[in-house]
Amino acid sequence: MLFFLLLSWVGQAFASDEKLQAMSEILAASKPSDWRTVSPENTLYMDLDRGRVVIELAPDFAPKHVENVKALARDRYWDGLAIIRTQDNYVVQWADPNSDNPEKKRPLKNGKATLAAEFDRKLDAKVPFNRLNEPDVYAREVGFSSGFPVARDAAENKMWMLHCYGAVGAGRDVSPDSGGGTELYAVIGHAPRHLDRNVTLVGRVIDGMEYLSASKRGPVPMGFYTNPVDRVSIKAFRLATDVPEKERTNFEVLRTDTPLFAKLVKSRKFRPEAWFFHHPQHIEVCNVPIPARIKH
Amino acid sequence: MLFFLLLSWVGQAFASDEKLQAMSEILAASKPSDWRTVSPENTLYMDLDRGRVVIELAPDFAPKHVENVKALARDRYWDGLAIIRTQDNYVVQWADPNSDNPEKKRPLKNGKATLAAEFDRKLDAKVPFNRLNEPDVYAREVGFSSGFPVARDAAENKMWMLHCYGAVGAGRDVSPDSGGGTELYAVIGHAPRHLDRNVTLVGRVIDGMEYLSASKRGPVPMGFYTNPVDRVSIKAFRLATDVPEKERTNFEVLRTDTPLFAKLVKSRKFRPEAWFFHHPQHIEVCNVPIPARIKH
Repeated sequence: MLFFLLLSWVGQAFASDEKLQAMSEILAASKPSDWRTVSPENTLYMDLDRGRVVIELAPDFAPKHVENVKALARDRYWDGLAIIRTQDNYVVQWADPNSDNPEKKRPLKNGKATLAAEFDRKLDAKVPFNRLNEPDVYAREVGFSSGFPVARDAAENKMWMLHCYGAVGAGRDVSPDSGGGTELYAVIGHAPRHLDRNVTLVGRVIDGMEYLSASKRGPVPMGFYTNPVDRVSIKAFRLATDVPEKERTNFEVLRTDTPLFAKLVKSRKFRPEAWFFHHPQHIEVCNVPIPARIKH
Repeated sequence: MLFFLLLSWVGQAFASDEKLQAMSEILAASKPSDWRTVSPENTLYMDLDRGRVVIELAPDFAPKHVENVKALARDRYWDGLAIIRTQDNYVVQWADPNSDNPEKKRPLKNGKATLAAEFDRKLDAKVPFNRLNEPDVYAREVGFSSGFPVARDAAENKMWMLHCYGAVGAGRDVSPDSGGGTELYAVIGHAPRHLDRNVTLVGRVIDGMEYLSASKRGPVPMGFYTNPVDRVSIKAFRLATDVPEKERTNFEVLRTDTPLFAKLVKSRKFRPEAWFFHHPQHIEVCNVPIPARIKH
């Protein structure tokens, strides 16, 4: 009897389940309301000779660092500075190559050199958390907050952003409060989740990752360029609002709080595409794609 | 009373625990017996203009594919072929750019074009499994087998290799048995674990990853180079045993079945280094380093 009941329940479960579509089909069927326009106020352009890297800032998670990064960008702090470090399977970092030389280092105008750490934040009903119903090795709960991969710990009353591929953070020294945003890095390898709550993340790259990830690796263990010739010069690093409209690249990011996004996650868990022999059934938070596209 | 007992127990736990060392200290204290010499019989050299990529093959997990890759290397199948695809946060793939052209494609000698899939293997007491005592999103149990990250499912009586950074696999078409080893790829991004048990993995890169991971990304979604000029030519792709001794680079890999390795894993879980503000307590299998070094 139990056997038949079980079979019947399983049959129902499958019958009630709509046929899974591939991600491409899901995106093709998306409506304008499934996408969120990225505010130019929270968009940074890092222009390199090889192309433009576009970063979306996350003021919900690091308000003071984001404000400082904006102040530095408005002052053109990074223009002419460089990528000084590329460590394989880890990070690309850009900063003032002369930051340790008091006579040569670039002076600050309105930006600050250091800030109190913003490793995590208190829970707040105004900051969304769309839970990914999956286990995680590092955190109790993981999910998404307006397009950013995040974790939540209800017992601690805390949320924080995750070091997934493309995450952008503020490098620091040994003291937790020694960062501030003058040295930024982007994750270019397998998610270094041990950095979660150890560094203040300020946003994520939504376009042009390939201009960072394909950088020549530095020759020493931490990937610093010992030969200055290897450094990649930053032509300009500006807030979108400081760029003339015709030079802007406007983006929209798939919303992570919609039925369409839930459908996309399900498709990526089960992989209905014909190529798949083994259907994984699970997905790790940093493997969930959060598509971005140029807004026309 | 319980309070005091608990405190006392915690105190004991800490007291009995040796002080955690950083990975660098653990490796500095390693003995020759903590390392395993990589057999030249299972070592491949992929020589590019930019440097040498060294791959260790895993005959325990894909015996037929490994035998075929060796036959292809002995026949110099890949010499003069190229990296034809670099997809950001995914894979670098090398193959015959003319594989679809019957007149131009490179003929096979002793190698085979396709083989039955080797996506997983039966458990066998002779194939080690050193369990990582950590949860995993994709598999019931994960760990290491002679230096390769692997998963195990005792209920299914199966083991398989994981798509961690640097894993090398045999590309295939839609049919599971359409691969064989003529098209190989290496993982250069966040572990695409959905590929586990969907592709036959043949080994992993133990040196020179930066010569693959820094490749220019291809311009189309799957990263193929539409302009042949972008392809990276393979000067030579040989088994170490086919290379004169003075041109070999001999490697040893840290053993993954020793107390020293267990100590290293523990250090990477808790991160005793002064820089860490938040100690992660956990580690995801693909974040566990498996050091390799030149054997002098």
